[in-house]
Amino acid sequence: MAKVADSYFKVDPWKVVEEGFDPEYGLTAESVFSLGNEYMGVRGYFEEGYSGSRLLGSYFNGVYERQKADAPGYKGIVQETEFMVNSLDWLHVRIRAREEELNLATSKVSDFYRELDLQSGCLTRSFAWETKQGTLKLCFERLISMVHSEEAAQRITVSSEDYQGELKICIGLDFDTVHGGDKKLWDIPERKAEANKCYIKGRTKVTGMEVESFCHISGSFTEKWSATPVSEDDKAAVEYSIQIAKGEKVILEKKVINITPLAKNSQTGSAAWSRLEQMSFDGMLAESKSWWADVWNKSDIEILGDEENQQGIRFCISQMFQTYHGAIEGTNIGAKGLTGEAYNGNAFWDTETYCLPFFLFHDKQAARNLLYFRYATLDEARKRAQALDCKGAFYPIATISGRECCSLWQHASLQLQASTAVAYGIWCYEKITADTSFVEEYGLEMLIEISRMLATRGDYNADHTRYGYYCVMGPDEFQMMVNQNCYTNYMGRFTFRYTLEVMERMKKQAPESLAKVKAKVGFDEKEGHDWQEKADAMYIPYDEERQIFEQHEGYFELPHVDVDAIPVEEFPLYNHWSYDRIYRNDMIKQPDVLMFLLLFNSSFSQDIIRKNYEFYEPRCIHESSLSPSVHSILAQQLNRPEEAFDFFRFATRMDLDNYNRNSGEGLHTTSIAAAWMNIVYGFGGLRSDGEMLSMAPGIPKQWDGYKFRVVYGEEVLCVEVDRKSVRLHTQKGGEISMKIYGQICKIAGETMEFAMK
Amino acid sequence: MAKVADSYFKVDPWKVVEEGFDPEYGLTAESVFSLGNEYMGVRGYFEEGYSGSRLLGSYFNGVYERQKADAPGYKGIVQETEFMVNSLDWLHVRIRAREEELNLATSKVSDFYRELDLQSGCLTRSFAWETKQGTLKLCFERLISMVHSEEAAQRITVSSEDYQGELKICIGLDFDTVHGGDKKLWDIPERKAEANKCYIKGRTKVTGMEVESFCHISGSFTEKWSATPVSEDDKAAVEYSIQIAKGEKVILEKKVINITPLAKNSQTGSAAWSRLEQMSFDGMLAESKSWWADVWNKSDIEILGDEENQQGIRFCISQMFQTYHGAIEGTNIGAKGLTGEAYNGNAFWDTETYCLPFFLFHDKQAARNLLYFRYATLDEARKRAQALDCKGAFYPIATISGRECCSLWQHASLQLQASTAVAYGIWCYEKITADTSFVEEYGLEMLIEISRMLATRGDYNADHTRYGYYCVMGPDEFQMMVNQNCYTNYMGRFTFRYTLEVMERMKKQAPESLAKVKAKVGFDEKEGHDWQEKADAMYIPYDEERQIFEQHEGYFELPHVDVDAIPVEEFPLYNHWSYDRIYRNDMIKQPDVLMFLLLFNSSFSQDIIRKNYEFYEPRCIHESSLSPSVHSILAQQLNRPEEAFDFFRFATRMDLDNYNRNSGEGLHTTSIAAAWMNIVYGFGGLRSDGEMLSMAPGIPKQWDGYKFRVVYGEEVLCVEVDRKSVRLHTQKGGEISMKIYGQICKIAGETMEFAMK
Repeated sequence: MAKVADSYFKVDPWKVVEEGFDPEYGLTAESVFSLGNEYMGVRGYFEEGYSGSRLLGSYFNGVYERQKADAPGYKGIVQETEFMVNSLDWLHVRIRAREEELNLATSKVSDFYRELDLQSGCLTRSFAWETKQGTLKLCFERLISMVHSEEAAQRITVSSEDYQGELKICIGLDFDTVHGGDKKLWDIPERKAEANKCYIKGRTKVTGMEVESFCHISGSFTEKWSATPVSEDDKAAVEYSIQIAKGEKVILEKKVINITPLAKNSQTGSAAWSRLEQMSFDGMLAESKSWWADVWNKSDIEILGDEENQQGIRFCISQMFQTYHGAIEGTNIGAKGLTGEAYNGNAFWDTETYCLPFFLFHDKQAARNLLYFRYATLDEARKRAQALDCKGAFYPIATISGRECCSLWQHASLQLQASTAVAYGIWCYEKITADTSFVEEYGLEMLIEISRMLATRGDYNADHTRYGYYCVMGPDEFQMMVNQNCYTNYMGRFTFRYTLEVMERMKKQAPESLAKVKAKVGFDEKEGHDWQEKADAMYIPYDEERQIFEQHEGYFELPHVDVDAIPVEEFPLYNHWSYDRIYRNDMIKQPDVLMFLLLFNSSFSQDIIRKNYEFYEPRCIHESSLSPSVHSILAQQLNRPEEAFDFFRFATRMDLDNYNRNSGEGLHTTSIAAAWMNIVYGFGGLRSDGEMLSMAPGIPKQWDGYKFRVVYGEEVLCVEVDRKSVRLHTQKGGEISMKIYGQICKIAGETMEFAMK
Repeated sequence: MAKVADSYFKVDPWKVVEEGFDPEYGLTAESVFSLGNEYMGVRGYFEEGYSGSRLLGSYFNGVYERQKADAPGYKGIVQETEFMVNSLDWLHVRIRAREEELNLATSKVSDFYRELDLQSGCLTRSFAWETKQGTLKLCFERLISMVHSEEAAQRITVSSEDYQGELKICIGLDFDTVHGGDKKLWDIPERKAEANKCYIKGRTKVTGMEVESFCHISGSFTEKWSATPVSEDDKAAVEYSIQIAKGEKVILEKKVINITPLAKNSQTGSAAWSRLEQMSFDGMLAESKSWWADVWNKSDIEILGDEENQQGIRFCISQMFQTYHGAIEGTNIGAKGLTGEAYNGNAFWDTETYCLPFFLFHDKQAARNLLYFRYATLDEARKRAQALDCKGAFYPIATISGRECCSLWQHASLQLQASTAVAYGIWCYEKITADTSFVEEYGLEMLIEISRMLATRGDYNADHTRYGYYCVMGPDEFQMMVNQNCYTNYMGRFTFRYTLEVMERMKKQAPESLAKVKAKVGFDEKEGHDWQEKADAMYIPYDEERQIFEQHEGYFELPHVDVDAIPVEEFPLYNHWSYDRIYRNDMIKQPDVLMFLLLFNSSFSQDIIRKNYEFYEPRCIHESSLSPSVHSILAQQLNRPEEAFDFFRFATRMDLDNYNRNSGEGLHTTSIAAAWMNIVYGFGGLRSDGEMLSMAPGIPKQWDGYKFRVVYGEEVLCVEVDRKSVRLHTQKGGEISMKIYGQICKIAGETMEFAMK
């Protein structure tokens, strides 16, 4: 782990603060100061225009464009990809003081201050603009509603210190955004502007998706103000001309309703206009504070004695909820959330593997919605299976609408873990929420189709003694076209068995639902026998003597690379090594064997986990931001507290400290989810894959204590850990049977205390 | 071998004949009737214009354009590819009889006849054009000079049967050709036309390569003719208007000089014009006949009792010489020769592996020129090695100018056989020609650089006991990203050892040349020790018990596919199977183990060859046109005459009978070379890789006898085989020591007879 923090923001337990503006950190700050509410997201860009380096990014979940892929035309290789398209700049404003236009790249500015308040969700920025004619103080506030997904607001306050004269503020909606640095992708079929109001409609050229925005502007208007509607090019706005006197203060407040095809309340036209008149910035702020208060009451993690990580984990939790909380149907979690266009806004298997646990332990409905996305896109997965000469359903490795969006066949055609992760997600959902309705209504259909794929994508070896997957890429993306990948086979076997188990159980518990699903998918009992046979014959490469799983057939024979000897300037390897060279040795990019040892942790002895950790950890180069977290959790389990803390820190402050030097492109959303796992699964030692919930908390020596809560069944389990003991109780007084340090206990309303082990 | 002949042309021992025109066979006929002289090539298209399906293809060797590749931007992946660009239509003509324009797709035509005369190289086409006003008889002849590379000629004879009136013939040069079906790639910086003369210059847009053409027209001019120069768009021509009477005959003769950057005699301007005046169609025809007579005297293969294959093999030999005979420096042999733009005119490792033997046994200088191409492009191979994080030289898998033109990394970065084929080519050249000057002057430098690449591309396995290549694709392109590929390792070991052997020998025999090369490449003696060690540690996967080489580590474990059970409509698999599916089993596309058993045939016992043939042949799907030939030769060696003949027929009439249903895109030039090997190496049993030349002729039961000649050292070895015996003698009376049926003999001027074994 040669990664080093690049600290910039001020540490504060409830805020992210930037004092003074350094353009070098401009892009990173834009990502970190992103706001989002699952439906829409906006980077922390300077809304008044800025000629320095930046990414003016404004995104709507599920609003995507399509493009031809740069890929050879062989069967099964994706020829068109979809990407979340950079969209409307609804924060658009331009400010002129006489002949000077405000632009932080060129204007003279002092006292720059910016803060994201994690308790209100409000982003505030203020500074003094020293124009040639005198100084103006500006304050920009912005807010995206967490309650009404389509709504957002902006407030601009300008106070004159010693400036006198004309001020021009053009405020409105602008579709002049570029995607990927240079592509203009919006047609503007409609726009209009009148005094204090404007409206615009954009339409993507290929997918024809429409985004409509209604905007209402109010302010401290006086007779000295004049308003000119501006409706030109890609813009609908109102330009205010104001005569400002020394010491005077003016305020402009913009409220918007953005309607996309995914809008829950698509109140357009007059409904939108009247709704806008009811809204106010302060009203929305109060609503937002209350929403966030609920979140922190339910989901806060407190860390005593470590302010940096306290800030880090709260930033992560806040980002998780901004990215997703089950507010709307049909959305998923992009690799960068709604904070950037890298990875094309595509969702990966990270959703089920890294993000789902957070929601499973906080909001059952959000978790269910997330899984439902896979059901809603099952038909696309069926088509994808066909394209790959398989039966059943093959889930995409990267997607927005359910279609595969990865045009690199070596990922899209070889990685089966997106499909098995869906099965794993369904299993976790059942296990943690104790809600069997999802699997009965939706889950089984997916499980059957995934099993069908697994039964046709795999093969028996030459002498027909071993079943498994040939030419795959496991979670470790530095081993390509391998055979009998341990992870893939393990997950394949799990999926077959879980599918059969669900069917067996439903025979008794939900025979009608079972019959319905079987009829729908045309299930043949012979298929079940086939899956049973294949599961039983599934080959899990394992060295009995050393008790080490072999990542894939032949892995132990591979040339060894000393990952610590690779010069730091060669990272990332994708950019500095010949593409094929990456794959020619035993170096791994991210956990593969260790991954399933975590996912099915309770199935393996501490001894086996230790041996495999000791073998694979030194071979891992952590070129995935998801890698350290798994290592942190397992290191804690194996009583390697220093290593655990080291890996932990990296994920928790990944973006605040820009560890990977690419936070400017957007936040590492799934690593953010992993940061939560690091504390709850890692230090807290929570495990949910066994017969019952279990916990074995430890505490890093750097901390005095920590607290967290998880929702489990109908209860909230409250956990407090200090250096000597662990205290647990349930919030509502209900009983939870669970293991603490291996001992079965019943946790209830009364706090139970356990000595730290 | 599920391939079936699609017979169309008339069988004739010295001609390819088409009687009557079937548009369904139009593209195939265009390929088959291609003319070429290494410098330029032209498909057998209808020069008078044709609105049916066709590929008007006219190519100049080494004249290429460049384009951005559709490839991901990882290091070592080719981002720009080069392709032989469809060029000037120097045969251009348009013929009008009053308001009718001649167009074989729409005009009423009878008595269509076309023939390619293999003894003169002349293509002749004649038919009667039944216009509404009466019938005209037309005859088109064309010829490319085999003596003066830049020169070509065309003759058009029009005789009126009962037509009377105006005839308009516009004849000249036209750059209005399209590449790849729709791309216009030429700028025309200059063009002019005057009575009986025209000139045009084209320039490619990216590479800026210039093609100039000088054209002179003569004819049976009378006072009834009028000539109008035409210089417009991409065309420079002369339009003749003629009043033709019933029974009258008119003749037009066009001679052209085409100058490209590779022209040997770039006589341009006035020199070109005066040279054109000396030229005549009949003069060139006589010259051509004499040139071809020499070829047939030296290189003919006679087959008694099998007219189809007699025609086939002569067509193949003629095509070999048309494609290459060492006429100009810096050219190579494209996969389609100069007969089509498929495979981009790129040369592959086929050159050294399949084509070189033909030239080694016919024309030492041509063989040397072919190898020299690799020396001339050594610097590009050095750059390519760098791009792939290797030292030394990595030869491209597909190239025109020496740069890698394959943008599929799975071929370009994983296939080492282009490099080892160069080493093998140098070895063969020395062995067969007994000329050591090439290796001393050029070969060693290449060998050292290839060995350097082989020493850096490979790796030792985990416990450092085995050296070899990881993540490669061997000759069999249906096994990708495999480790320890037997062929690659075998060839790597050969290259190391041969390089060291050459250096050892040159210490005594050419110490100065050795010192010069060593100094030039900065050779360090430590490198030699390293190569020796790596050669000794080279892993050749082999099952001792079954005596079968394992194609690569783990191959024996792969799922089995019954290749005979694949429905014929699924071919070619690249088009019908999901891309990844092709690679997930033990099916092979073309010989891999069998390939090195052929290349180093004398090093293996008959028993081992048999066991490996019996194992691998049933697993081979022959999706490469090069595959059957290797199987034919080995089947003959293993005394499986039926199989040998079956595989043989396929290669020999591959294009005449359009076995692969894609001859319309261009001829299978390297398969054509393999056809020659099938007879000489196959039925003739010639082997040149052992201590001395050896031969063990057999004869297919379908034949009465066959004869062939090969040049060996300073001599020509003449071989005659009939059903009972083999007769050999040397043409000039010199002595050749060689093995016949394993017995050492001295063949001299007197015919020696051996009983058939």
